[in-house]
Amino acid sequence: MVQIPKTPAPASSAPRSVPTSADVARLAGVSRATVSYVLNNTGAVRISEPTRRRVHEAARELGYVPHAAARSLRAGHSRTVLMPAPAFPVGPLYSRFIGELQWALGRLDYTVVQYGTTGPHGDEAARAWAELRPVAVLVPGSLGPRGVEILRRSGARAVVTFGPEPVEGAHALLMDHETVGHRAARHLHDRGRRRIGVVMPEEDGLEVFSAPRLEGARRAVDGTDATVTGLPLAYEERSAARLAARWRSLGLDAVFAYNDEYAMLLMRALQDEGVAVPAETALIGADDLMLGRLLRPRLSTVRLELPSGRDLAALVDRAVHDPGATPERHEVLGATVVHRESS
Amino acid sequence: MVQIPKTPAPASSAPRSVPTSADVARLAGVSRATVSYVLNNTGAVRISEPTRRRVHEAARELGYVPHAAARSLRAGHSRTVLMPAPAFPVGPLYSRFIGELQWALGRLDYTVVQYGTTGPHGDEAARAWAELRPVAVLVPGSLGPRGVEILRRSGARAVVTFGPEPVEGAHALLMDHETVGHRAARHLHDRGRRRIGVVMPEEDGLEVFSAPRLEGARRAVDGTDATVTGLPLAYEERSAARLAARWRSLGLDAVFAYNDEYAMLLMRALQDEGVAVPAETALIGADDLMLGRLLRPRLSTVRLELPSGRDLAALVDRAVHDPGATPERHEVLGATVVHRESS
Repeated sequence: MVQIPKTPAPASSAPRSVPTSADVARLAGVSRATVSYVLNNTGAVRISEPTRRRVHEAARELGYVPHAAARSLRAGHSRTVLMPAPAFPVGPLYSRFIGELQWALGRLDYTVVQYGTTGPHGDEAARAWAELRPVAVLVPGSLGPRGVEILRRSGARAVVTFGPEPVEGAHALLMDHETVGHRAARHLHDRGRRRIGVVMPEEDGLEVFSAPRLEGARRAVDGTDATVTGLPLAYEERSAARLAARWRSLGLDAVFAYNDEYAMLLMRALQDEGVAVPAETALIGADDLMLGRLLRPRLSTVRLELPSGRDLAALVDRAVHDPGATPERHEVLGATVVHRESS
Repeated sequence: MVQIPKTPAPASSAPRSVPTSADVARLAGVSRATVSYVLNNTGAVRISEPTRRRVHEAARELGYVPHAAARSLRAGHSRTVLMPAPAFPVGPLYSRFIGELQWALGRLDYTVVQYGTTGPHGDEAARAWAELRPVAVLVPGSLGPRGVEILRRSGARAVVTFGPEPVEGAHALLMDHETVGHRAARHLHDRGRRRIGVVMPEEDGLEVFSAPRLEGARRAVDGTDATVTGLPLAYEERSAARLAARWRSLGLDAVFAYNDEYAMLLMRALQDEGVAVPAETALIGADDLMLGRLLRPRLSTVRLELPSGRDLAALVDRAVHDPGATPERHEVLGATVVHRESS
């Protein structure tokens, strides 16, 4: 760990005073109301171009910027869309989705802020988010109906959850992870495999995805002579080596490895143990990461598709404009098998 | 792309009114000031335990939460620490650092919000951040002295940048990426290599890291008979295959691949081209990702260390309490070579 030494505080100079809209009004020779109209872009009042310019110049000269909080207090709500950062490790697919969503909400003149991952949980978390008076909240993962209520009561016009289950009072983007497991197991079954393992990551926060994937795999082979076995695995070499060492005793001929990263870990361990992929054990991941294409054999995968950030931004905007509307529910997770060499 | 259909808006019910501190005061039978003292945890005023409890119960019953913005208007500043999300793709090392930092700031009673990656740039970005009136701003990457000034003028008591260069008026966590390249090239030179390639990612936002790494590699072999050559590479298989196809004409015997992910991409392409690693070409990455240990040969790497989130949180807290203090400067990037099989 790199240390930051604690420096003794040097003699401090007095902090300069923060310029206010009154200062801007004085310098521009206009009223405070005019400053507010110009800088907050209120379309309701017509201000001449020279006056507008004078206000902007005075603001620039003084280094004045409007106060979003004061504005939101006046307006009764903010343009802030709050997103708690997800509690699970985020892959590139999700990062891209978030980036696109922020861009699309920015185009609709919302400010997106992400709330730290660590901190309060459950209703306490909802209360902490509510203190920021967001106009909308997008929650990856779980939130109880009571949390939704807290947010709505504090003025949030829209609460949107994304997860496997809808929550009362909130719009829901339903991510059906059963389909991911179903597609993977069906593919392995179609390739003639009958004894299918499903990797269950031991890391915190992933069970909400892995449990439905296992369930989906079970459903896929329901009524056939195939079996599905859950395989706990931690994301570390030793755990993979232990699983690989007892692989032959498990009698499996295929495995859905939860995602491409666990698949890479397991493929390496199986190969080191002399288990031939795919001859002896077929292997499929999920997420369609580039690293899957770099493995030898090239990794088969389930490609996931999240909704477009633009569509989700439009949903948020709709909900903000009609806060009393019946919550919308959408299935948003697309899943297709990309067959390469490992299965 | 999964489509979210646009549903026609159903008949809307009127949104409920948002409870205020006046409602809480009425229900608890106390003054609004008392409500404010209790819920904002103001230590300055003593309130009896039964009154405190009555206020909390009334707030819970009504679903009232204090308004952070109103509180910050009264206090003259907020407890919000704003972090623009970095403009470069974030790896697990950086994610962990951010997570730890948020946790440490939360313990000091700050609220950390991340501002979207996409959106305004330069001074415009600083102005957008200033609208949220953060008490401190942590900026990964670049910010001009004018941006610092805008933030300070709007009431930010501390601006902390992390990047290769200090910025006037801001505290600086200096990340010396030259050292990363220096360590990698010195290692390769020590292993007897003399014609060293350095991968330069073609992706946006990475030049701020890759250019000093190349420079550091050059410095490492300065005055020796070794040479250093920059190798542009995009993070995609075709780009790697093209580079590998002309590898032997380059006459290199070693390569520092920018980081472990580019190293994996290049190792794969070199092996497919029949170039033996490390016999013919020694290879080293950076970041010490798990995937490096999964490659065969196992990847040598430069392990980076970022400052502890706790130390950085302490710096922020110090700076908030003494906004006139001379900006601190700290070298914070640790870099050590982890020698495995590929070099």
